[in-house]
Amino acid sequence: MQASTSLASAVDGQRFWKDLEAQAQIGALSPRGLQRLALDDQDNLARAWLIEQGDALGCSAHYDAMGNVFLRREGLDPTLAPLLIGSHLDSQPNGGAYDGTLGVVAGLAVLRTLVEQGITHARPVEVVSWTNEEGARFAPGASGSAWFTGRRDAEMILTAQDDDGLTFKAALADCLTLLEAHGAHFRTEPVMPHAFLELHIEQGPVLEEQGAPVCVVTGIQGVNWYEVEVHGQANHAGTTPEAMRCDAFMGAHAMVGALKAAVAEHDDQVRFTIGKFTVSPSSVNTIPNQARFTIDLRHPDAAVLEALDAAFQQLAQREWSGCTAQLKATSQVAPVAFDDTLVSVLDEAVQAHCPKAPRLVSGAFHDAIHLAHLCPTAMLFTPCRAGISHHPDEHIERADAEVAVRTLTHAVEQLLITRSHENDADN
Amino acid sequence: MQASTSLASAVDGQRFWKDLEAQAQIGALSPRGLQRLALDDQDNLARAWLIEQGDALGCSAHYDAMGNVFLRREGLDPTLAPLLIGSHLDSQPNGGAYDGTLGVVAGLAVLRTLVEQGITHARPVEVVSWTNEEGARFAPGASGSAWFTGRRDAEMILTAQDDDGLTFKAALADCLTLLEAHGAHFRTEPVMPHAFLELHIEQGPVLEEQGAPVCVVTGIQGVNWYEVEVHGQANHAGTTPEAMRCDAFMGAHAMVGALKAAVAEHDDQVRFTIGKFTVSPSSVNTIPNQARFTIDLRHPDAAVLEALDAAFQQLAQREWSGCTAQLKATSQVAPVAFDDTLVSVLDEAVQAHCPKAPRLVSGAFHDAIHLAHLCPTAMLFTPCRAGISHHPDEHIERADAEVAVRTLTHAVEQLLITRSHENDADN
Repeated sequence: MQASTSLASAVDGQRFWKDLEAQAQIGALSPRGLQRLALDDQDNLARAWLIEQGDALGCSAHYDAMGNVFLRREGLDPTLAPLLIGSHLDSQPNGGAYDGTLGVVAGLAVLRTLVEQGITHARPVEVVSWTNEEGARFAPGASGSAWFTGRRDAEMILTAQDDDGLTFKAALADCLTLLEAHGAHFRTEPVMPHAFLELHIEQGPVLEEQGAPVCVVTGIQGVNWYEVEVHGQANHAGTTPEAMRCDAFMGAHAMVGALKAAVAEHDDQVRFTIGKFTVSPSSVNTIPNQARFTIDLRHPDAAVLEALDAAFQQLAQREWSGCTAQLKATSQVAPVAFDDTLVSVLDEAVQAHCPKAPRLVSGAFHDAIHLAHLCPTAMLFTPCRAGISHHPDEHIERADAEVAVRTLTHAVEQLLITRSHENDADN
Repeated sequence: MQASTSLASAVDGQRFWKDLEAQAQIGALSPRGLQRLALDDQDNLARAWLIEQGDALGCSAHYDAMGNVFLRREGLDPTLAPLLIGSHLDSQPNGGAYDGTLGVVAGLAVLRTLVEQGITHARPVEVVSWTNEEGARFAPGASGSAWFTGRRDAEMILTAQDDDGLTFKAALADCLTLLEAHGAHFRTEPVMPHAFLELHIEQGPVLEEQGAPVCVVTGIQGVNWYEVEVHGQANHAGTTPEAMRCDAFMGAHAMVGALKAAVAEHDDQVRFTIGKFTVSPSSVNTIPNQARFTIDLRHPDAAVLEALDAAFQQLAQREWSGCTAQLKATSQVAPVAFDDTLVSVLDEAVQAHCPKAPRLVSGAFHDAIHLAHLCPTAMLFTPCRAGISHHPDEHIERADAEVAVRTLTHAVEQLLITRSHENDADN
């Protein structure tokens, strides 16, 4: 890299916002919002737009067997592992314009700045758009990054079907044809990244409340999902004395109290949510014979999740208001802690642009959760209004987003300067 | 009455059980259970059977404008108010063979015993079958007794429709024609009873647990029904810190705890049931924005219900985990305490046949709830297996039922002896 003058201030904020608006038109809903389901026509057009922008910048476009798209600005030493920046372009049905797209367009803004400022760098820089992060059309999501990092088999991804019975494989074929037609080059072998950076909207309320336009994300919470059933005995609400009841609702109520108490023994980073709760037979004057509920439990520390898992399993062994309980873990995803060195680089960049920013742990999944298993990875968050996401009302302030993009650019500058000749054994 | 020797021992238990089996054939389900919806063909046949039995005993049959049927054994003084004994012959859909029918057949057993023993009595004795106690075909139930006691207008009853759109009035016309054809006499004026006795299955588990074949019922609990809504804010389960949540499930959980605590300040006769409980949007990883539940609250003492009503209303004013609540009373039925003197007579009879029997307050409604507003009224309960009712598995033990019928007969004997010349101003 030529100089250590601040590249961040050279970012063309107007152009960045124009790019974001251009992306927001592809699959736009009326009066607002976005629908670009993975590998549908709009999602493919969004990729094509990205390739065109890269082409105009003199960057080469590449794609792989899962339709992940890479814009590459070559480095002085093409053998070095590329610095990878990006996110995803697909959306939820009836979704918002910033979830994912912001991170890709921000990467493009970094490329534009490097080109416009005539910066040269030893290490290649690549902007990536991962395929099917949302999982709304083909479940589960984060297909592109999961495959890229070797954490999910192609077979599992390709055989997934959408609601119309169309396979991922069939939808992908059209996409790959389009990418080829746009002059993107097929990569037969994955390229190992030097590091991965992802800027994303927070999808939570903390940054807005704290008035911080950007912050470092130090990791992604682990998530355990459970289904609990409490079994009692149905009886007449009027004729059955309390002492003779096996009331499944009251059993569940008591058990929830104990689960809450177990959670309260840990720090306030625990997220404990009961999102579904039903009783049967669901009649005003019948004592329920069954209560069923779900638990969504999150924490950044695997040890805390393990301790709570053990506590929950123990509580399920007890009798609750004369009822028995069953607790079944339906999903367990371990937390990820991002790379310390990379987090420090982002910390410095954030300090330069927003000294009072908090550090957050992401409560939602992102492609970075898979990348973190492959290469040094870290994220930046920027606030979204009222934490609303996956909804047409998803909204970010242009001023916040610009600070976030400048922060990202600042970090990229530091990485290209200070780390361009270190640790290249990984290439 | 001729003598004070025990009429109870003269009851023909075998004949009583045969009568009950004969009734169980009318509308029988396979392999067991009964379906005789109010005023359907089977329900009408059950009335015809009753009239035929009365005819064979030399009792006259009467009916009124709601199809209530009365078998009358004349007294030496026909101007005295009749002692009324009975219950109902209609059933729930997919119901049991004893709910209601037992009380009518038990009244018939009393008549048979009086006739067979050649007993004469000053006061007339009548056995009644009330129309549409269950309310399963035409809601609300207890139509016949509610009209008879002046507590419900004929218009409201007659215009009720079944699921096929047929009115109560139309179904009743067929019934009245049949009753007339069977030689029953139409009563243009209601006959004021001297007292009303009803034997019924408990429909709860207490007597079976205590091994008591019969007990006195001292009243019927009052019932308040409520609907509660707790309003919070939907948010992402992973990204929203606990301090920033308005979790409607957790609000409802806290409120239920407070409602339970309010209930616990009263005696153990309170029945507090949450039979329905739902959350929305009902997604594993979304904090619920709404929780809705019902409350079924019962107690024999109106003052306790009033105190709890006030406490519940106050609790609904509070904030629960950052959520607001609304509590709406959807139904309030005042408790009924049965006539002390009549309860004492039943107590003596029960003491003679089952010294260890408890006294119960009925948790379910019966025709007696209306009669109690018109004349001295009381009930006897006999156990049903596991408290199961409104189900084909409804079951009573013959030995228990015989003790209950003998107890009823014992009480009738006492009433005809000791009370036949008292309090006839009510006729």
